[in-house]
Amino acid sequence: MMVLYSYWRSTTSYRVRVALNLKGLVYETRAVDLVAGAQRSENYAALNPGQGVPTLVLEDGSVLTQSMAILDYLDALVPTPALLPADPLDRAHALAAAHTIAMDIHPVINLKIVGRLKGEHGASQDDGVAWMKHWMTEGFRAYQALLTLETSKFSFGETPLLCDICLVAQLYNAYRWGVDMSQFGRLLEIEKEAMKLDAFQQARPDAQPDAG
Amino acid sequence: MMVLYSYWRSTTSYRVRVALNLKGLVYETRAVDLVAGAQRSENYAALNPGQGVPTLVLEDGSVLTQSMAILDYLDALVPTPALLPADPLDRAHALAAAHTIAMDIHPVINLKIVGRLKGEHGASQDDGVAWMKHWMTEGFRAYQALLTLETSKFSFGETPLLCDICLVAQLYNAYRWGVDMSQFGRLLEIEKEAMKLDAFQQARPDAQPDAG
Repeated sequence: MMVLYSYWRSTTSYRVRVALNLKGLVYETRAVDLVAGAQRSENYAALNPGQGVPTLVLEDGSVLTQSMAILDYLDALVPTPALLPADPLDRAHALAAAHTIAMDIHPVINLKIVGRLKGEHGASQDDGVAWMKHWMTEGFRAYQALLTLETSKFSFGETPLLCDICLVAQLYNAYRWGVDMSQFGRLLEIEKEAMKLDAFQQARPDAQPDAG
Repeated sequence: MMVLYSYWRSTTSYRVRVALNLKGLVYETRAVDLVAGAQRSENYAALNPGQGVPTLVLEDGSVLTQSMAILDYLDALVPTPALLPADPLDRAHALAAAHTIAMDIHPVINLKIVGRLKGEHGASQDDGVAWMKHWMTEGFRAYQALLTLETSKFSFGETPLLCDICLVAQLYNAYRWGVDMSQFGRLLEIEKEAMKLDAFQQARPDAQPDAG
C-alpha cells in the first residue's frame, strides 16, 4: 500500500490526499508533526531532503516529494478522472491557475517562512498573520481573475482539476487565519461544489488521524 | 510571432527564454520593468492578473502566464528536445527537483516579497539579502540531495531538463546576492555544461535587450 507522510493542517498534504481519493487509490497516512519539528529528524530528512510534507512512498519503495510533482505522477498513473484537460491550451490555463496558488501563495506563507519572519526578523504574531492574509488575498484575486466561466461547477468546467484541489486546500488555510473572503464569492461557490464530493470531504484536515 | 513579456533579471523569464530557445521557437521580447512597477500598469495587469513576468502571448493571441505552466505548454507544443523524461517515475523526480527551486526558493525571495519584508516589516537591505541567501542555500542543499547521478552532464542525464533550466536561472540570482556556493560543486558543474549551449547563452539576463 502507498504510504503518505502528511500533516493534517498542511495544505500541500491536503492536495495529495484529495488526488489520491479522486483516483481511488488506497493509502496509509503517517503523520509528520511539523509544529514539533519532526520533518527535521534525521530519518525523515533522508527520505525528503526538502524537510517538508508531503512525501509519498510507492509500493515498490520509490519516494516521491513535492506535492505538485506527486499530483502529476498520480495523474499519469491513474488517468481518470483527469486532473488536467487534454487540450494543451486548456491545460496551460488550468495549470497557471494552480500555480497562482501553489507558487504565489503557499510557499510564501508556509510555517517555516512565517517562523523565520518572526524568529529572525522580529515580526510579531500579528505581523505574521497580516503577512499571510496579504499574500492569500493577492493570490485569490489573481486566481479569480483567471476564471473565464461564470457558472461552471469548478474553475474550468464540471469536474475538479488540479487548480480546484489547490484552491480548496488554500481556502482551509484562509479561514484559519481570517482572510476576508467577501470579494471571492466565485471561489466559495467552487469550494461548496468540491465539498459535495467524498474525495474532498475525506481529505479535510479535521478528518485526518493526526488532527489536533 | 510569439511575444514574451520578460524582465532581464527575472529568473522565471529566464526559464521561459531557455525553453523557447531549446525548442527552436522564435519570439519577440517585450520588456516589463519590474523595478519601475510596469507589471502593475492597468494594461499589463489585464494581460497577467498575477502582475508578474513572464507572460507569453501566442500567435493566435492566447495569453499564457506562470513560467512553469508555460514550460509545460511548450513541451507539449514541441516535444523534442523533451523537458521531462518519458518514464513516469523519472518524470516525477525531475519535476520534484524543479519544484525545489520553483516552489521552495523563487517565490519566497522574489522582488515583491523582499520589497514587502522591507517596506512593511522594517527589514533593512542587509536583512533582505540575508533572507534571500538563506532560502537559496536551503533550496540548493535540497536540490543537490535529490541528485542521484554523480557524473551526468545534467541533473538527471545527458540533456537539460526543466529542473536544469530552473537551476541555472536561480544560480544567476545566487551570484547576484553573493550566496556561498562552496558546498554546491555539483550544481556548478551542471551550470557549466548548460552554458556550453546556445539556448542558455542567449537567454542570459545580460544578453537581453532590456539589460541595464
